[in-house]
Amino acid sequence: MHNEFSTQNGVPEIIREMADVAAAETLPHFRQPLHIENKLENGSEGASNDFDPVTIADKNTEAALRKLINQRFPDHGILGEEYGAENLQAEFVWVLDPIDGTRLFVSGLPLWGTLIALCHKGTPILGAMIQPVLGEIFVGAGSHAWLENTKSKAPLTRLATRQHETLGQATLFTTDPAILANGERARYDQLEQSCQLYRYGADCYGYAMVASGFADLDVEAGLQIYDIAALIPIIEAAGGKVTTWQGNPVRGLEKHERLQVLAAANETLHAQALAILDK
Amino acid sequence: MHNEFSTQNGVPEIIREMADVAAAETLPHFRQPLHIENKLENGSEGASNDFDPVTIADKNTEAALRKLINQRFPDHGILGEEYGAENLQAEFVWVLDPIDGTRLFVSGLPLWGTLIALCHKGTPILGAMIQPVLGEIFVGAGSHAWLENTKSKAPLTRLATRQHETLGQATLFTTDPAILANGERARYDQLEQSCQLYRYGADCYGYAMVASGFADLDVEAGLQIYDIAALIPIIEAAGGKVTTWQGNPVRGLEKHERLQVLAAANETLHAQALAILDK
Repeated sequence: MHNEFSTQNGVPEIIREMADVAAAETLPHFRQPLHIENKLENGSEGASNDFDPVTIADKNTEAALRKLINQRFPDHGILGEEYGAENLQAEFVWVLDPIDGTRLFVSGLPLWGTLIALCHKGTPILGAMIQPVLGEIFVGAGSHAWLENTKSKAPLTRLATRQHETLGQATLFTTDPAILANGERARYDQLEQSCQLYRYGADCYGYAMVASGFADLDVEAGLQIYDIAALIPIIEAAGGKVTTWQGNPVRGLEKHERLQVLAAANETLHAQALAILDK
Repeated sequence: MHNEFSTQNGVPEIIREMADVAAAETLPHFRQPLHIENKLENGSEGASNDFDPVTIADKNTEAALRKLINQRFPDHGILGEEYGAENLQAEFVWVLDPIDGTRLFVSGLPLWGTLIALCHKGTPILGAMIQPVLGEIFVGAGSHAWLENTKSKAPLTRLATRQHETLGQATLFTTDPAILANGERARYDQLEQSCQLYRYGADCYGYAMVASGFADLDVEAGLQIYDIAALIPIIEAAGGKVTTWQGNPVRGLEKHERLQVLAAANETLHAQALAILDK
Protein backbone atom coordinates (compact mmCIF):
# COMPACT_ATOMS: atom_id res chain seq x y z
CA MET A 1 0.00 0.00 0.00
CA HIS A 2 1.08 3.57 -0.61
CA ASN A 3 2.74 4.93 2.47
CA GLU A 4 0.38 7.87 2.65
CA PHE A 5 -2.52 5.45 3.21
CA SER A 6 -0.79 3.33 5.86
CA THR A 7 -2.09 3.35 9.42
CA GLN A 8 1.02 1.76 10.88
CA ASN A 9 1.89 4.89 12.84
CA GLY A 10 -1.62 6.20 13.52
CA VAL A 11 -4.09 8.31 11.54
CA PRO A 12 -2.84 9.10 8.01
CA GLU A 13 -2.48 12.82 7.30
CA ILE A 14 -5.04 12.70 4.46
CA ILE A 15 -7.65 11.27 6.87
CA ARG A 16 -6.92 13.99 9.39
CA GLU A 17 -7.45 16.58 6.63
CA MET A 18 -10.72 14.91 5.68
CA ALA A 19 -11.80 14.97 9.33
CA ASP A 20 -11.19 18.72 9.38
CA VAL A 21 -13.36 19.07 6.26
CA ALA A 22 -16.11 16.93 7.82
CA ALA A 23 -16.08 18.98 11.02
CA ALA A 24 -16.15 22.28 9.12
CA GLU A 25 -19.13 21.23 7.00
CA THR A 26 -21.21 19.39 9.60
CA LEU A 27 -20.80 21.16 12.94
CA PRO A 28 -22.25 24.54 11.89
CA HIS A 29 -25.49 22.70 11.00
CA PHE A 30 -25.69 20.30 13.96
CA ARG A 31 -28.40 21.26 16.45
CA GLN A 32 -29.47 24.16 14.27
CA PRO A 33 -32.82 24.65 12.56
CA LEU A 34 -32.42 22.77 9.26
CA HIS A 35 -34.33 22.34 6.06
CA ILE A 36 -34.77 18.58 5.85
CA GLU A 37 -35.56 17.02 2.48
CA ASN A 38 -37.11 13.60 2.07
CA LYS A 39 -35.08 11.47 -0.35
CA LEU A 40 -37.99 9.10 -0.96
CA GLU A 41 -40.17 10.56 -3.70
CA ASN A 42 -43.33 8.91 -2.50
CA GLY A 43 -42.71 9.68 1.15
CA SER A 44 -45.61 11.30 2.91
CA GLU A 45 -45.86 13.29 6.11
CA GLY A 46 -46.53 11.06 9.05
CA ALA A 47 -45.36 7.76 7.63
CA SER A 48 -42.04 7.10 9.32
CA ASN A 49 -41.03 4.27 6.97
CA ASP A 50 -41.26 6.63 4.00
CA PHE A 51 -38.99 9.28 5.46
CA ASP A 52 -35.32 9.30 4.50
CA PRO A 53 -33.95 12.69 5.53
CA VAL A 54 -31.10 14.53 3.85
CA THR A 55 -29.78 17.97 4.73
CA ILE A 56 -27.47 20.64 3.38
CA ALA A 57 -24.85 19.24 5.77
CA ASP A 58 -24.88 15.86 3.96
CA LYS A 59 -24.55 17.53 0.58
CA ASN A 60 -21.92 20.12 1.49
CA THR A 61 -19.75 17.58 3.32
CA GLU A 62 -19.69 15.21 0.37
CA ALA A 63 -19.04 18.07 -2.09
CA ALA A 64 -16.09 19.31 -0.01
CA LEU A 65 -14.61 15.83 0.34
CA ARG A 66 -14.95 15.21 -3.42
CA LYS A 67 -13.18 18.51 -4.12
CA LEU A 68 -10.29 17.54 -1.84
CA ILE A 69 -10.01 14.08 -3.43
CA ASN A 70 -10.13 15.48 -6.97
CA GLN A 71 -7.39 17.97 -6.15
CA ARG A 72 -5.14 15.52 -4.40
CA PHE A 73 -5.79 12.30 -6.33
CA PRO A 74 -7.00 13.27 -9.82
CA ASP A 75 -6.63 9.66 -11.04
CA HIS A 76 -8.87 8.20 -8.32
CA GLY A 77 -12.59 7.50 -8.65
CA ILE A 78 -15.32 8.47 -6.20
CA LEU A 79 -18.60 6.84 -5.16
CA GLY A 80 -20.71 8.93 -2.79
CA GLU A 81 -24.18 8.62 -1.30
CA GLU A 82 -25.33 12.09 -2.35
CA TYR A 83 -23.58 12.77 -5.67
CA GLY A 84 -23.10 9.29 -7.12
CA ALA A 85 -20.23 7.79 -9.10
CA GLU A 86 -17.32 9.21 -11.06
CA ASN A 87 -14.44 7.28 -12.66
CA LEU A 88 -15.35 3.97 -11.01
CA GLN A 89 -13.04 2.12 -13.39
CA ALA A 90 -10.04 3.69 -11.61
CA GLU A 91 -7.70 1.40 -9.67
CA PHE A 92 -8.41 3.38 -6.49
CA VAL A 93 -11.92 4.59 -5.63
CA TRP A 94 -13.02 6.58 -2.57
CA VAL A 95 -16.38 5.57 -1.13
CA LEU A 96 -18.14 8.28 0.89
CA ASP A 97 -21.13 8.56 3.18
CA PRO A 98 -20.94 12.18 4.33
CA ILE A 99 -23.36 11.66 7.25
CA ASP A 100 -24.17 8.08 8.14
CA GLY A 101 -27.07 8.39 10.55
CA THR A 102 -28.80 11.50 9.23
CA ARG A 103 -31.78 10.58 11.44
CA LEU A 104 -29.45 10.88 14.45
CA PHE A 105 -28.04 14.15 13.08
CA VAL A 106 -31.43 15.80 12.71
CA SER A 107 -32.51 14.54 16.15
CA GLY A 108 -29.50 16.12 17.88
CA LEU A 109 -27.69 12.88 18.83
CA PRO A 110 -23.90 12.92 18.36
CA LEU A 111 -23.56 9.31 17.14
CA TRP A 112 -23.61 9.96 13.37
CA GLY A 113 -20.38 9.68 11.44
CA THR A 114 -18.65 10.68 8.23
CA LEU A 115 -17.60 7.43 6.52
CA ILE A 116 -14.63 7.39 4.15
CA ALA A 117 -13.20 4.27 2.49
CA LEU A 118 -10.44 3.87 -0.03
CA CYS A 119 -11.03 0.84 -2.24
CA HIS A 120 -8.41 -0.86 -4.40
CA LYS A 121 -10.04 -2.75 -7.27
CA GLY A 122 -13.26 -2.91 -5.25
CA THR A 123 -11.71 -4.02 -1.95
CA PRO A 124 -11.76 -1.54 0.97
CA ILE A 125 -8.13 -1.15 2.09
CA LEU A 126 -8.40 1.95 4.29
CA GLY A 127 -11.41 3.08 6.30
CA ALA A 128 -12.24 5.99 8.55
CA MET A 129 -15.25 6.97 10.65
CA ILE A 130 -15.23 10.56 11.85
CA GLN A 131 -17.49 11.88 14.65
CA PRO A 132 -16.86 15.62 14.78
CA VAL A 133 -18.91 16.49 17.90
CA LEU A 134 -16.84 14.10 19.98
CA GLY A 135 -13.71 14.83 17.93
CA GLU A 136 -13.25 11.13 17.24
CA ILE A 137 -11.47 9.56 14.27
CA PHE A 138 -11.68 5.75 14.04
CA VAL A 139 -9.31 4.51 11.34
CA GLY A 140 -8.06 1.14 10.12
CA ALA A 141 -6.00 -0.46 7.36
CA GLY A 142 -4.13 -3.75 7.21
CA SER A 143 -3.48 -4.80 10.78
CA HIS A 144 -3.52 -1.38 12.49
CA ALA A 145 -6.70 0.31 13.72
CA TRP A 146 -6.80 3.39 15.95
CA LEU A 147 -9.03 5.85 17.75
CA GLU A 148 -7.68 9.37 17.83
CA ASN A 149 -9.54 12.09 19.69
CA THR A 150 -8.79 15.52 18.28
CA LYS A 151 -10.65 17.31 21.08
CA SER A 152 -9.50 15.57 24.25
CA LYS A 153 -6.01 14.92 25.52
CA ALA A 154 -6.69 11.17 25.48
CA PRO A 155 -3.75 9.23 24.06
CA LEU A 156 -4.02 7.59 20.64
CA THR A 157 -5.74 4.24 21.28
CA ARG A 158 -4.95 1.05 19.40
CA LEU A 159 -8.24 -0.69 18.66
CA ALA A 160 -8.69 -4.37 19.43
CA THR A 161 -11.92 -6.35 19.34
CA ARG A 162 -13.24 -8.31 22.30
CA GLN A 163 -12.65 -12.04 22.64
CA HIS A 164 -16.00 -13.20 24.01
CA GLU A 165 -16.60 -16.66 22.58
CA THR A 166 -20.33 -17.30 23.07
CA LEU A 167 -23.42 -15.41 21.95
CA GLY A 168 -24.60 -15.54 25.57
CA GLN A 169 -21.81 -13.09 26.47
CA ALA A 170 -22.29 -10.91 23.41
CA THR A 171 -23.61 -7.38 22.88
CA LEU A 172 -25.41 -6.96 19.54
CA PHE A 173 -26.11 -3.73 17.68
CA THR A 174 -28.62 -3.12 14.92
CA THR A 175 -30.03 0.21 13.82
CA ASP A 176 -33.69 -0.82 13.75
CA PRO A 177 -35.07 -4.37 13.50
CA ALA A 178 -38.28 -2.98 11.99
CA ILE A 179 -36.47 -2.18 8.75
CA LEU A 180 -35.53 -5.83 8.21
CA ALA A 181 -37.46 -7.64 5.49
CA ASN A 182 -39.86 -10.48 6.26
CA GLY A 183 -37.44 -13.31 5.60
CA GLU A 184 -34.70 -11.55 7.57
CA ARG A 185 -36.57 -10.68 10.74
CA ALA A 186 -37.04 -14.16 12.21
CA ARG A 187 -33.35 -14.99 11.84
CA TYR A 188 -32.33 -11.65 13.32
CA ASP A 189 -34.75 -12.13 16.23
CA GLN A 190 -33.29 -15.56 16.98
CA LEU A 191 -29.81 -14.03 17.06
CA GLU A 192 -30.97 -11.15 19.28
CA GLN A 193 -32.55 -13.56 21.73
CA SER A 194 -29.30 -15.53 21.90
CA CYS A 195 -27.25 -12.49 22.93
CA GLN A 196 -26.78 -11.03 26.41
CA LEU A 197 -27.50 -7.45 25.41
CA TYR A 198 -28.74 -5.65 22.32
CA ARG A 199 -28.90 -1.99 21.42
CA TYR A 200 -30.72 -0.15 18.64
CA GLY A 201 -30.21 3.19 16.97
CA ALA A 202 -26.44 3.53 16.77
CA ASP A 203 -25.94 3.36 12.97
CA CYS A 204 -22.18 3.44 12.18
CA TYR A 205 -21.31 3.99 15.83
CA GLY A 206 -22.25 0.39 16.66
CA TYR A 207 -19.62 -0.92 14.24
CA ALA A 208 -17.06 1.43 15.79
CA MET A 209 -17.85 -0.09 19.20
CA VAL A 210 -17.31 -3.60 17.81
CA ALA A 211 -13.90 -2.45 16.53
CA SER A 212 -13.18 -0.84 19.91
CA GLY A 213 -13.96 -3.90 22.02
CA PHE A 214 -17.18 -2.67 23.68
CA ALA A 215 -19.62 -4.70 21.61
CA ASP A 216 -19.40 -7.98 19.75
CA LEU A 217 -21.80 -7.98 16.81
CA ASP A 218 -23.45 -5.52 14.45
CA VAL A 219 -26.04 -6.97 12.08
CA GLU A 220 -27.96 -5.06 9.44
CA ALA A 221 -29.65 -5.44 6.08
CA GLY A 222 -30.72 -3.15 3.26
CA LEU A 223 -27.38 -1.35 3.18
CA GLN A 224 -25.44 0.15 0.29
CA ILE A 225 -21.68 -0.23 -0.01
CA TYR A 226 -21.09 3.35 1.21
CA ASP A 227 -22.84 2.46 4.49
CA ILE A 228 -20.28 -0.21 5.35
CA ALA A 229 -17.10 0.02 3.20
CA ALA A 230 -15.29 2.39 5.57
CA LEU A 231 -16.06 0.24 8.60
CA ILE A 232 -14.65 -3.01 7.21
CA PRO A 233 -10.91 -2.13 7.36
CA ILE A 234 -11.39 -0.66 10.86
CA ILE A 235 -13.08 -3.77 12.26
CA GLU A 236 -10.81 -6.23 10.45
CA ALA A 237 -7.61 -4.40 11.43
CA ALA A 238 -8.86 -4.56 15.04
CA GLY A 239 -9.32 -8.35 14.83
CA GLY A 240 -12.92 -8.69 13.72
CA LYS A 241 -14.61 -10.14 10.67
CA VAL A 242 -17.18 -8.57 8.32
CA THR A 243 -19.15 -10.56 5.74
CA THR A 244 -22.58 -10.83 4.20
CA TRP A 245 -25.23 -12.97 5.92
CA GLN A 246 -24.02 -15.75 3.60
CA GLY A 247 -20.46 -15.46 4.84
CA ASN A 248 -19.10 -13.81 1.70
CA PRO A 249 -16.69 -10.87 1.72
CA VAL A 250 -18.31 -7.44 1.26
CA ARG A 251 -16.67 -6.16 -1.91
CA GLY A 252 -17.41 -4.25 -5.10
CA LEU A 253 -18.89 -0.87 -5.95
CA GLU A 254 -22.17 -1.89 -7.54
CA LYS A 255 -25.58 -0.83 -6.26
CA HIS A 256 -27.17 -3.44 -4.00
CA GLU A 257 -30.76 -4.50 -3.86
CA ARG A 258 -30.42 -5.45 -0.23
CA LEU A 259 -26.92 -5.82 1.18
CA GLN A 260 -26.94 -7.86 4.42
CA VAL A 261 -23.97 -7.33 6.72
CA LEU A 262 -22.66 -9.28 9.70
CA ALA A 263 -19.79 -7.70 11.62
CA ALA A 264 -18.29 -9.74 14.44
CA ALA A 265 -15.55 -9.18 17.01
CA ASN A 266 -13.86 -12.50 16.25
CA GLU A 267 -14.06 -15.64 14.12
CA THR A 268 -15.76 -17.73 16.79
CA LEU A 269 -18.67 -15.34 17.29
CA HIS A 270 -18.87 -14.76 13.56
CA ALA A 271 -19.39 -18.47 12.96
CA GLN A 272 -22.07 -18.71 15.66
CA ALA A 273 -23.98 -15.71 14.31
CA LEU A 274 -23.63 -16.93 10.73
CA ALA A 275 -25.11 -20.29 11.70
CA ILE A 276 -28.30 -18.43 12.66
CA LEU A 277 -28.37 -15.81 9.88
CA ASP A 278 -27.48 -18.07 6.95
CA LYS A 279 -30.47 -20.39 7.11
CA MET B 1 -37.63 28.52 45.83
CA HIS B 2 -34.30 28.84 47.60
CA ASN B 3 -31.97 31.02 45.57
CA GLU B 4 -29.31 28.34 45.47
CA PHE B 5 -31.68 26.10 43.49
CA SER B 6 -32.78 28.75 40.99
CA THR B 7 -31.83 28.41 37.33
CA GLN B 8 -32.69 32.00 36.49
CA ASN B 9 -29.06 32.86 35.74
CA GLY B 10 -27.89 29.47 34.43
CA VAL B 11 -26.65 26.29 36.09
CA PRO B 12 -26.84 26.45 39.91
CA GLU B 13 -23.47 26.04 41.63
CA ILE B 14 -24.61 22.88 43.47
CA ILE B 15 -25.47 21.24 40.13
CA ARG B 16 -22.09 22.16 38.71
CA GLU B 17 -20.47 20.56 41.78
CA MET B 18 -22.58 17.45 41.29
CA ALA B 19 -21.54 17.34 37.61
CA ASP B 20 -17.90 17.35 38.72
CA VAL B 21 -18.65 14.44 41.06
CA ALA B 22 -20.43 12.54 38.28
CA ALA B 23 -17.55 13.07 35.86
CA ALA B 24 -14.96 12.02 38.44
CA GLU B 25 -16.81 8.79 39.26
CA THR B 26 -17.97 7.74 35.79
CA LEU B 27 -15.27 8.73 33.27
CA PRO B 28 -12.45 6.57 34.69
CA HIS B 29 -14.72 3.53 34.12
CA PHE B 30 -16.15 4.46 30.72
CA ARG B 31 -14.72 2.37 27.88
CA GLN B 32 -12.68 0.34 30.33
CA PRO B 33 -12.95 -3.38 31.07
CA LEU B 34 -15.65 -3.53 33.73
CA HIS B 35 -17.12 -6.12 36.02
CA ILE B 36 -20.80 -6.02 35.13
CA GLU B 37 -23.31 -7.41 37.60
CA ASN B 38 -26.80 -8.47 36.66
CA LYS B 39 -29.41 -6.86 38.92
CA LEU B 40 -32.04 -9.44 38.03
CA GLU B 41 -31.64 -12.43 40.32
CA ASN B 42 -33.04 -14.90 37.85
CA GLY B 43 -31.19 -13.49 34.86
CA SER B 44 -29.34 -16.04 32.81
CA GLU B 45 -26.54 -15.76 30.27
CA GLY B 46 -27.88 -15.28 26.80
CA ALA B 47 -31.34 -14.01 27.64
CA SER B 48 -31.27 -10.32 26.88
CA ASN B 49 -34.57 -9.53 28.62
CA ASP B 50 -33.19 -10.90 31.89
CA PHE B 51 -30.08 -8.76 31.88
CA ASP B 52 -30.08 -5.51 33.85
CA PRO B 53 -26.45 -4.44 34.15
CA VAL B 54 -24.98 -2.43 37.01
CA THR B 55 -21.35 -1.44 37.45
CA ILE B 56 -19.03 0.00 40.04
CA ALA B 57 -19.48 3.34 38.23
CA ASP B 58 -23.22 3.35 39.01
CA LYS B 59 -22.59 2.55 42.67
CA ASN B 60 -19.67 4.91 43.25
CA THR B 61 -21.41 7.82 41.54
CA GLU B 62 -24.52 7.48 43.69
CA ALA B 63 -22.45 7.04 46.86
CA ALA B 64 -20.44 10.19 46.12
CA LEU B 65 -23.54 12.24 45.33
CA ARG B 66 -25.24 11.04 48.54
CA LYS B 67 -22.18 12.03 50.54
CA LEU B 68 -22.21 15.53 49.02
CA ILE B 69 -25.96 15.92 49.67
CA ASN B 70 -25.65 14.67 53.27
CA GLN B 71 -22.82 17.14 53.96
CA ARG B 72 -24.50 20.10 52.33
CA PHE B 73 -28.17 19.47 53.10
CA PRO B 74 -28.35 17.28 56.23
CA ASP B 75 -32.11 17.88 56.53
CA HIS B 76 -32.90 16.68 53.00
CA GLY B 77 -33.94 13.16 52.06
CA ILE B 78 -32.50 11.01 49.25
CA LEU B 79 -34.00 8.40 46.93
CA GLY B 80 -31.49 6.69 44.66
CA GLU B 81 -31.61 3.80 42.22
CA GLU B 82 -28.70 1.89 43.75
CA TYR B 83 -28.88 2.63 47.50
CA GLY B 84 -32.57 3.25 48.07
CA ALA B 85 -34.36 5.69 50.36
CA GLU B 86 -33.35 7.76 53.37
CA ASN B 87 -35.42 10.40 55.16
CA LEU B 88 -38.19 10.46 52.53
CA GLN B 89 -40.45 12.35 54.92
CA ALA B 90 -38.22 15.42 54.55
CA GLU B 91 -39.66 18.49 52.82
CA PHE B 92 -36.90 18.33 50.19
CA VAL B 93 -35.79 15.01 48.71
CA TRP B 94 -33.08 14.44 46.07
CA VAL B 95 -33.89 11.75 43.52
CA LEU B 96 -30.85 10.17 41.85
CA ASP B 97 -30.15 7.86 38.96
CA PRO B 98 -26.35 7.76 38.88
CA ILE B 99 -26.17 6.30 35.36
CA ASP B 100 -29.39 6.28 33.38
CA GLY B 101 -28.60 4.09 30.38
CA THR B 102 -26.15 1.62 31.92
CA ARG B 103 -26.60 -0.51 28.77
CA LEU B 104 -25.28 2.44 26.76
CA PHE B 105 -22.45 2.93 29.25
CA VAL B 106 -21.23 -0.66 29.05
CA SER B 107 -21.52 -0.60 25.24
CA GLY B 108 -19.29 2.48 24.92
CA LEU B 109 -21.97 4.94 23.73
CA PRO B 110 -21.80 8.44 25.28
CA LEU B 111 -25.56 9.00 25.59
CA TRP B 112 -26.03 7.86 29.21
CA GLY B 113 -26.62 10.50 31.85
CA THR B 114 -26.48 11.19 35.55
CA LEU B 115 -29.98 12.25 36.60
CA ILE B 116 -30.50 14.49 39.62
CA ALA B 117 -33.84 15.91 40.76
CA LEU B 118 -34.73 17.97 43.78
CA CYS B 119 -38.31 17.30 44.88
CA HIS B 120 -40.36 19.52 47.17
CA LYS B 121 -43.12 17.51 48.86
CA GLY B 122 -42.93 14.99 46.03
CA THR B 123 -42.91 17.48 43.16
CA PRO B 124 -39.71 17.80 41.09
CA ILE B 125 -38.74 21.48 41.20
CA LEU B 126 -35.16 21.31 39.89
CA GLY B 127 -33.73 18.78 37.47
CA ALA B 128 -30.36 18.11 35.90
CA MET B 129 -29.05 15.62 33.36
CA ILE B 130 -25.29 15.39 33.17
CA GLN B 131 -23.38 13.74 30.28
CA PRO B 132 -19.72 13.80 31.32
CA VAL B 133 -18.15 12.51 28.07
CA LEU B 134 -19.67 15.38 26.13
CA GLY B 135 -19.32 17.74 29.10
CA GLU B 136 -23.02 18.57 28.93
CA ILE B 137 -25.25 19.76 31.76
CA PHE B 138 -28.95 20.08 30.94
CA VAL B 139 -30.74 21.84 33.79
CA GLY B 140 -34.19 23.25 34.41
CA ALA B 141 -36.37 24.77 37.13
CA GLY B 142 -39.42 27.00 36.97
CA SER B 143 -39.31 28.71 33.58
CA HIS B 144 -35.57 28.58 32.89
CA ALA B 145 -33.85 25.60 31.27
CA TRP B 146 -30.28 25.58 29.97
CA LEU B 147 -27.59 23.54 28.31
CA GLU B 148 -24.09 24.30 29.53
CA ASN B 149 -21.10 22.58 27.97
CA THR B 150 -18.19 22.41 30.39
CA LYS B 151 -15.79 21.07 27.72
CA SER B 152 -16.45 23.22 24.68
CA LYS B 153 -16.43 26.98 24.32
CA ALA B 154 -20.07 26.90 23.22
CA PRO B 155 -22.11 29.65 24.87
CA LEU B 156 -24.69 28.79 27.51
CA THR B 157 -27.83 27.84 25.57
CA ARG B 158 -31.36 28.61 26.70
CA LEU B 159 -33.50 25.53 26.01
CA ALA B 160 -36.81 25.87 24.22
CA THR B 161 -38.98 23.08 22.87
CA ARG B 162 -40.09 22.87 19.24
CA GLN B 163 -43.50 24.10 18.16
CA HIS B 164 -44.47 21.43 15.62
CA GLU B 165 -48.23 21.01 15.87
CA THR B 166 -48.95 17.68 14.18
CA LEU B 167 -47.72 14.16 14.82
CA GLY B 168 -46.87 13.97 11.12
CA GLN B 169 -44.08 16.49 11.71
CA ALA B 170 -42.91 14.92 14.96
CA THR B 171 -39.81 12.98 15.97
CA LEU B 172 -40.51 10.34 18.65
CA PHE B 173 -38.02 8.70 21.00
CA THR B 174 -38.43 5.51 22.96
CA THR B 175 -35.68 3.37 24.42
CA ASP B 176 -36.97 0.02 23.16
CA PRO B 177 -40.52 -0.82 22.09
CA ALA B 178 -39.87 -4.49 22.89
CA ILE B 179 -39.93 -3.70 26.63
CA LEU B 180 -43.49 -2.39 26.46
CA ALA B 181 -46.14 -4.64 27.95
CA ASN B 182 -48.78 -6.30 25.80
CA GLY B 183 -51.49 -3.74 26.36
CA GLU B 184 -49.05 -0.89 25.83
CA ARG B 185 -47.44 -1.99 22.58
CA ALA B 186 -50.37 -1.54 20.20
CA ARG B 187 -51.00 2.02 21.39
CA TYR B 188 -47.32 2.86 21.17
CA ASP B 189 -47.11 1.37 17.67
CA GLN B 190 -50.05 3.49 16.52
CA LEU B 191 -48.31 6.59 17.84
CA GLU B 192 -45.01 5.62 16.20
CA GLN B 193 -46.70 5.11 12.85
CA SER B 194 -48.29 8.55 13.12
CA CYS B 195 -44.94 10.30 13.57
CA GLN B 196 -42.53 11.42 10.87
CA LEU B 197 -39.45 9.92 12.50
CA TYR B 198 -38.72 7.68 15.46
CA ARG B 199 -35.48 6.74 17.16
CA TYR B 200 -34.68 4.02 19.67
CA GLY B 201 -31.94 3.55 22.21
CA ALA B 202 -31.38 7.04 23.58
CA ASP B 203 -32.61 6.58 27.18
CA CYS B 204 -32.49 9.94 29.03
CA TYR B 205 -30.84 11.63 26.05
CA GLY B 206 -34.09 11.50 24.09
CA TYR B 207 -35.86 13.59 26.75
CA ALA B 208 -32.97 16.07 26.66
CA MET B 209 -33.49 16.42 22.90
CA VAL B 210 -37.21 17.12 23.44
CA ALA B 211 -36.22 19.87 25.89
CA SER B 212 -33.65 21.17 23.41
CA GLY B 213 -36.02 21.43 20.44
CA PHE B 214 -34.60 18.60 18.30
CA ALA B 215 -37.33 16.05 18.98
CA ASP B 216 -40.98 16.28 19.92
CA LEU B 217 -42.02 13.24 21.93
CA ASP B 218 -40.47 10.68 24.26
CA VAL B 219 -42.74 7.84 25.33
CA GLU B 220 -41.81 5.03 27.70
CA ALA B 221 -43.29 2.63 30.22
CA GLY B 222 -42.00 0.53 33.09
CA LEU B 223 -40.06 3.43 34.60
CA GLN B 224 -39.32 4.30 38.20
CA ILE B 225 -39.49 7.87 39.48
CA TYR B 226 -35.68 8.19 39.45
CA ASP B 227 -35.72 7.51 35.68
CA ILE B 228 -37.82 10.58 34.94
CA ALA B 229 -37.99 13.03 37.90
CA ALA B 230 -34.89 15.00 36.84
CA LEU B 231 -36.11 15.37 33.27
CA ILE B 232 -39.51 16.87 34.14
CA PRO B 233 -38.35 20.34 35.29
CA ILE B 234 -35.97 20.55 32.31
CA ILE B 235 -38.65 19.76 29.72
CA GLU B 236 -41.35 21.85 31.42
CA ALA B 237 -39.08 24.88 31.90
CA ALA B 238 -38.29 24.63 28.18
CA GLY B 239 -41.99 24.73 27.27
CA GLY B 240 -42.92 21.05 27.16
CA LYS B 241 -45.31 18.87 29.12
CA VAL B 242 -44.70 15.57 30.95
CA THR B 243 -47.48 13.33 32.25
CA THR B 244 -48.44 9.70 32.61
CA TRP B 245 -50.18 7.95 29.70
CA GLN B 246 -53.41 8.94 31.48
CA GLY B 247 -52.50 12.62 31.43
CA ASN B 248 -51.74 12.86 35.15
CA PRO B 249 -48.75 14.72 36.57
CA VAL B 250 -45.75 12.52 37.42
CA ARG B 251 -45.33 13.07 41.14
CA GLY B 252 -44.48 11.29 44.36
CA LEU B 253 -41.61 9.13 45.59
CA GLU B 254 -43.30 5.75 45.83
CA LYS B 255 -42.16 2.66 43.95
CA HIS B 256 -44.12 2.10 40.76
CA GLU B 257 -45.37 -1.13 39.31
CA ARG B 258 -45.18 0.27 35.80
CA LEU B 259 -44.87 4.04 35.42
CA GLN B 260 -45.88 5.15 31.90
CA VAL B 261 -44.47 8.50 30.80
CA LEU B 262 -45.37 10.80 27.91
CA ALA B 263 -43.10 13.79 27.37
CA ALA B 264 -44.11 16.26 24.67
CA ALA B 265 -42.64 19.45 23.25
CA ASN B 266 -45.90 21.38 23.58
CA GLU B 267 -49.53 21.14 24.68
CA THR B 268 -50.87 20.50 21.19
CA LEU B 269 -48.67 17.49 20.50
CA HIS B 270 -49.21 16.25 24.04
CA ALA B 271 -52.96 16.18 23.49
CA GLN B 272 -52.60 14.34 20.17
CA ALA B 273 -50.28 11.71 21.64
CA LEU B 274 -52.46 11.33 24.72
CA ALA B 275 -55.49 10.67 22.53
CA ILE B 276 -53.68 7.59 21.21
CA LEU B 277 -51.97 6.42 24.43
CA ASP B 278 -54.94 6.85 26.80
CA LYS B 279 -57.30 4.38 25.19
